[in-house]
Amino acid sequence: METVGPPYAPLGPDASLSAGIQRFHARQMHLLDSGEAEAWAATFTEDGLFAPPSLPEPVRGRAALAAGVRKAHEELAAEGEARRHLLTTAAVGDPEPDGSVRVRSYVQVVATRRDEAPKLLLMCVCEDVLVVEDGEWRVRERYVTRDDRP
Amino acid sequence: METVGPPYAPLGPDASLSAGIQRFHARQMHLLDSGEAEAWAATFTEDGLFAPPSLPEPVRGRAALAAGVRKAHEELAAEGEARRHLLTTAAVGDPEPDGSVRVRSYVQVVATRRDEAPKLLLMCVCEDVLVVEDGEWRVRERYVTRDDRP
Amino acid sequence: METVGPPYAPLGPDASLSAGIQRFHARQMHLLDSGEAEAWAATFTEDGLFAPPSLPEPVRGRAALAAGVRKAHEELAAEGEARRHLLTTAAVGDPEPDGSVRVRSYVQVVATRRDEAPKLLLMCVCEDVLVVEDGEWRVRERYVTRDDRP
Repeated sequence: METVGPPYAPLGPDASLSAGIQRFHARQMHLLDSGEAEAWAATFTEDGLFAPPSLPEPVRGRAALAAGVRKAHEELAAEGEARRHLLTTAAVGDPEPDGSVRVRSYVQVVATRRDEAPKLLLMCVCEDVLVVEDGEWRVRERYVTRDDRP
Repeated sequence: METVGPPYAPLGPDASLSAGIQRFHARQMHLLDSGEAEAWAATFTEDGLFAPPSLPEPVRGRAALAAGVRKAHEELAAEGEARRHLLTTAAVGDPEPDGSVRVRSYVQVVATRRDEAPKLLLMCVCEDVLVVEDGEWRVRERYVTRDDRP
Repeated sequence: METVGPPYAPLGPDASLSAGIQRFHARQMHLLDSGEAEAWAATFTEDGLFAPPSLPEPVRGRAALAAGVRKAHEELAAEGEARRHLLTTAAVGDPEPDGSVRVRSYVQVVATRRDEAPKLLLMCVCEDVLVVEDGEWRVRERYVTRDDRP
């Protein structure tokens, strides 16, 4: 019946799971928006996969992930544009047998230029496979789609 | 003093309550936006009441709830429009004596058409009375108002 | 390495911390948007500091805080405009040695006038220092910046 999100037990003993993932996601978006390229890349596993809607092929591995963010952030900074990734409405699944956790969330991308009103640039859906490594949540796979593209 | 939300004990032992409700709400919005009409209707109690701002009378019962979502989703699909309900800023109350929980939250409705920028269509306030049935959170009553209407 | 948010232990025993702060923030925004000036001011410590982007100097103390909100709300009400503060993507830090907790979050300010579409008025970053007083979370310091200003 359920085709749009991960399985979950609504009343399960998962409060610390949800809370930890919420904080992880928030911190990760802040790092991204602040152009902390290496720190952001370190929120993925070493060979983490990121399939953004803007590229024909997924990006894999921290070096490539960091390079992509650094370039994008420099371009935006040159144009005086701030970007924010607002991750909300996160449906956190129960842990899979291998300990990974799937999360489906909505991400608004808001762009603001100096002295202008903010613009809702993109409405995205983000599907993550998260794992714990060294006591930290990390993204093993991330698939992002945008609503304005088929 | 407090007239805009449910009562709550900020430091109470309610983390699992909040986490479970957050996941419930997220999953419910995903079902709605994906047009999973029956699965969405099943997130209400059998005789659940939904008072949306777009109708003169509340909708009651799963069959009517599902029919409404199915029709709306088909119309949007025909027009190639994606809708997202972003539920945020949720003030979760403490359980009432009967076990129900009141939640007041903000819901942005974002509409996106192919190759167009997303639009913030509606800004709504959602007031829920939630109950647990068969180990699942369900909506017994939902009252939604939109800020552009008196 | 981390320059954009508070320190945190992602898997720590902090679920109730995060849940309590999320509820606090939500309730606080609802009070603000409903013009409950005194109740909103009471969510700050007695000498709480609020540094909004719209004023040259921070506001300090509940009386001044309440006066500011009351005036702003009356003006908006006279113009028939509803404002919503959507606080999301909250990176909650671990408790500091003195028990305070730092939180960095994103706040969208949405303005809606009757029969008009809602407008995303401001995209802000909110940095809080929260403390517990009398069993309640309170804001000791709040610094807000908006993305359209340097």
